[in-house]
Amino acid sequence: MAQQDLNNRTLESMLPKTLGEYLLDCLKQEGLTEIFGVPGDYNFSLLDAIERYAGIRFINGRNELNSGYAADAYARISGLSALITTFGVGEMSACNAVAGARSEHVPVIHIVGSPPDAAQKQHKLMHHTLMDGNYDVFRQMYEHITAYTAVLTPENAMLEIPNAIRIAKEKKQPVYLVVADDLVAKPVVMRQEASLAKTVSNPNALQTAVDRINRMLMQAQSAILMVDVKTMRFHWEQYVRKLAESLNLPVVSTLYGKSAFDESHPLFMGMYGGAFGRQDVRSLVENADCVIAAGFIEADTNTANFTAKLDPLRLIDIQPSKVKVGLAEYPNVMAEDLLLALQNIGWKRPGTPTKGPRPYDAISGNPDEPLQAASYYPRFQRMLKEGDVVIAETGTFYFGMSQVSLPKNTIFIGQGAWQSIGYATPAAYGACIAAPSRRILLFTGDGSLQLTAQEISSMLHYGCKPIIFVLNNDGYTIEKYLNVKTENQTYNNIPNWSYTKLADAFGGEAFAVAVRTNQELDDAISRAEKECASKMCIIEVMAGDPMDAPDYMHNMRYYLEQQQKLKQ
Amino acid sequence: MAQQDLNNRTLESMLPKTLGEYLLDCLKQEGLTEIFGVPGDYNFSLLDAIERYAGIRFINGRNELNSGYAADAYARISGLSALITTFGVGEMSACNAVAGARSEHVPVIHIVGSPPDAAQKQHKLMHHTLMDGNYDVFRQMYEHITAYTAVLTPENAMLEIPNAIRIAKEKKQPVYLVVADDLVAKPVVMRQEASLAKTVSNPNALQTAVDRINRMLMQAQSAILMVDVKTMRFHWEQYVRKLAESLNLPVVSTLYGKSAFDESHPLFMGMYGGAFGRQDVRSLVENADCVIAAGFIEADTNTANFTAKLDPLRLIDIQPSKVKVGLAEYPNVMAEDLLLALQNIGWKRPGTPTKGPRPYDAISGNPDEPLQAASYYPRFQRMLKEGDVVIAETGTFYFGMSQVSLPKNTIFIGQGAWQSIGYATPAAYGACIAAPSRRILLFTGDGSLQLTAQEISSMLHYGCKPIIFVLNNDGYTIEKYLNVKTENQTYNNIPNWSYTKLADAFGGEAFAVAVRTNQELDDAISRAEKECASKMCIIEVMAGDPMDAPDYMHNMRYYLEQQQKLKQ
Repeated sequence: MAQQDLNNRTLESMLPKTLGEYLLDCLKQEGLTEIFGVPGDYNFSLLDAIERYAGIRFINGRNELNSGYAADAYARISGLSALITTFGVGEMSACNAVAGARSEHVPVIHIVGSPPDAAQKQHKLMHHTLMDGNYDVFRQMYEHITAYTAVLTPENAMLEIPNAIRIAKEKKQPVYLVVADDLVAKPVVMRQEASLAKTVSNPNALQTAVDRINRMLMQAQSAILMVDVKTMRFHWEQYVRKLAESLNLPVVSTLYGKSAFDESHPLFMGMYGGAFGRQDVRSLVENADCVIAAGFIEADTNTANFTAKLDPLRLIDIQPSKVKVGLAEYPNVMAEDLLLALQNIGWKRPGTPTKGPRPYDAISGNPDEPLQAASYYPRFQRMLKEGDVVIAETGTFYFGMSQVSLPKNTIFIGQGAWQSIGYATPAAYGACIAAPSRRILLFTGDGSLQLTAQEISSMLHYGCKPIIFVLNNDGYTIEKYLNVKTENQTYNNIPNWSYTKLADAFGGEAFAVAVRTNQELDDAISRAEKECASKMCIIEVMAGDPMDAPDYMHNMRYYLEQQQKLKQ
Repeated sequence: MAQQDLNNRTLESMLPKTLGEYLLDCLKQEGLTEIFGVPGDYNFSLLDAIERYAGIRFINGRNELNSGYAADAYARISGLSALITTFGVGEMSACNAVAGARSEHVPVIHIVGSPPDAAQKQHKLMHHTLMDGNYDVFRQMYEHITAYTAVLTPENAMLEIPNAIRIAKEKKQPVYLVVADDLVAKPVVMRQEASLAKTVSNPNALQTAVDRINRMLMQAQSAILMVDVKTMRFHWEQYVRKLAESLNLPVVSTLYGKSAFDESHPLFMGMYGGAFGRQDVRSLVENADCVIAAGFIEADTNTANFTAKLDPLRLIDIQPSKVKVGLAEYPNVMAEDLLLALQNIGWKRPGTPTKGPRPYDAISGNPDEPLQAASYYPRFQRMLKEGDVVIAETGTFYFGMSQVSLPKNTIFIGQGAWQSIGYATPAAYGACIAAPSRRILLFTGDGSLQLTAQEISSMLHYGCKPIIFVLNNDGYTIEKYLNVKTENQTYNNIPNWSYTKLADAFGGEAFAVAVRTNQELDDAISRAEKECASKMCIIEVMAGDPMDAPDYMHNMRYYLEQQQKLKQ
């Protein structure tokens, strides 16, 4: 290195950083290479800082909700993400995405650019405000849906930014930072960054819990491991796999936990979906004399409307920083420590678990027959390959795809808990940006796509090449299934778009085709597998019968009808 | 009427109403014939109630933000509107629209369907929640952006619903009502509806204020009337017109107040836009020795970045329930009472005010020349006719259209204060539903349209026939104008859509054409004026120069550049 270069570097490193640069440094240090968002005049200096900054690029979305969804999916793949919006209008558009990240344990750093500091202090009536001089109102709203909020200044930036990032990472929840537009280019006041100690286990609690679990296992004949969503969010996948292998435990996933455990693994038995899912898996779980649950959430949609029967006395409920063993709860036990300790207790379940038949292994349906769930899900399963990212929209596809067996190292993304219709298309965008070398498969419905369709345009703009399946079943079929009180609700009908023409209208190029028969779908998939190397692919799957659905939804409907009859 | 019919009617009127029916009765009584929204499983019973109800129909939107915007525009035309969303995901998507209604003084009744009552009371983890058992969190957020919130039950419905509607109407602000899905079909507990007294003026305060104003006018030589946005929102138009005529006052509007006063009226002088607007109007206002302001909001964008100079000593600032005369403030003076009293004080300004030249009266530009602001705004002005509804998107068009002279009885809709980009397209949808017999003209930009484009599909679905002008200037031109610190910001570029292909992709039919020259625009306008009787019209206005803009924005840019220089 030339002396001049060295001198320049030294000089530069001695100059105080601006607040904007410091913020970007912190994000870069976490491995972020992209930040999502939408421009607005109060975030110009943040965006200008990114334009000048090496190593992070700004990814423009068509609106803030969609950018929030994209950031959510990016964080699921990369571990963390950031979203920039403008004050008032921008951040208020993103509430759903951020609340969703909170509900689904996704760490998104939401950064808001606000009006100039002096205007705020003088309570001037600026545009994008409620016209009441209150500049704290939106932050106060965000307190309800984030784990932490802070108003950044040059004085507090070196404390607040690392702290907010630490909380987001530790709690796997979104956090909110707001900064006045004219403070972004101000130098940060240098501070000793607080050494942020990681929360650790209480060794006594840990040991007691391990002993207790050991005693429970010693008496067990049919213990199993149930892997749920927090395993993915808190990145315990390797711990959980090793635990299953060490203890020779048959493994099931939940609906939310799909893809947390390698579905091609010899110990993987299938997804447990209470009264709606596979009966063989249900027997395995409900007859087990001990269930080790990793990161379980006992929610309606995760337990098939609470039909999942898990006896609390036989349950070992491992949560991020506590464990419940039967009726005894041990706080301050970190899941990683516990999962590691349990690998080495020496107990092993005897015998080799046997797998039941998987729902969609056999290709069915004659070539000329109209498409139906029973015929297209096996075809989707057949086309999946190692490393794919599968994004399933809330609705028919989320439930149907949950029954499709995934190859090794597949990432399955869906909103099991928050279930915001429209999430999946922008999420596919976020996934394309997060994992450009993986194949991204989006499975969405006609009703859902319409909420956020413009993100297809963003994907075209950035050269993303997902394969998009749009299930055209003439409306919100999932909603029709969920409403057992009335029939033919007109409000569940939607305009019938020409989905294959969207890319063209959005000024981009895609391989787009509508398919009606099994053969047409087979041909379209073959073609897309080639075309996706160079362009986006859109396959409109025309359902023969609008009320056709996967077995999981038939079982759900049957259950809801029975419940409704009981009420009458 | 047959006896049997009479008996049935009597019987029906004796049956207790359900909560849902009672809610719809209250809204119908306010003149509502439509309710906007998006279905979701927790609002099914609300939507089922509407399907069974005579006189109100549900208007389906493509997403909740857009439905909220549509409801906002409907309320601006009809005086009140209602929006139905589902819990969590739905209401969180609508925050921006509702906060916008708050900022802009628009009364929207936001009704949320929530999970079953028992599930809430047991704090079950239901989908669409934050997975923490808290069912009050979203209502708490809405407290910040509405004038009133309530959790409805059969017991309180007859108190809370009329109260919420009264507050929305009195304050011209949104209110929020949430009801558990399974309570909607329950009979309301009959209550004596509280007699909700209208706020009235304090007669002494009113008389004192009138006397004081009278003294001020007696000394005035050049008094004028300035009409702002609250004149429209609080429906003082007739009072204000009569006041101007009685006192022979020259009238100006503000930016937010555009269309509050008949622009073809002999007393109307033009829009006052401080340093950005017409110089003759500026002189008139700033040299006036008395300014009567009706419903003024002293906001940045309403005062051309606070360059509007209104001497507080010469200002009579009439607000909904108070008035400020010079430095003296009189609370409890209702604007309607004051405006009425002032009509009859006997004072009259001498002489006949003379109007200055209007910016866009003369058609300019040769037929083959590329389109530019100076040539297309006069053409827009020429095509306007009495009774039109003009919706101008935040951005270039909002500022440009503000300088276009409107015919009598034209409604001008824009978000001057909240300025949420993307508002205008769904607002046009709401306007089409509210005023099916009026011609709806939407002026939007390429950047803005992309945020909420799917509402074009909704308009096609419901047979709405607006004329839509899309200004294709290759990005967020308004944002480029507002950022004077950097140039060629890549973040202000957007994908280039084929706007004329959108209707086809959305499965509908429209007259759609892209125009590049003055002649092409003239032809397209002529054609649209015929076609709009039977179908939607989309005219893509291709700007010759992406940075071309109306004078108002040139002046704004010049001002911002000067300010930036002062800082350096």
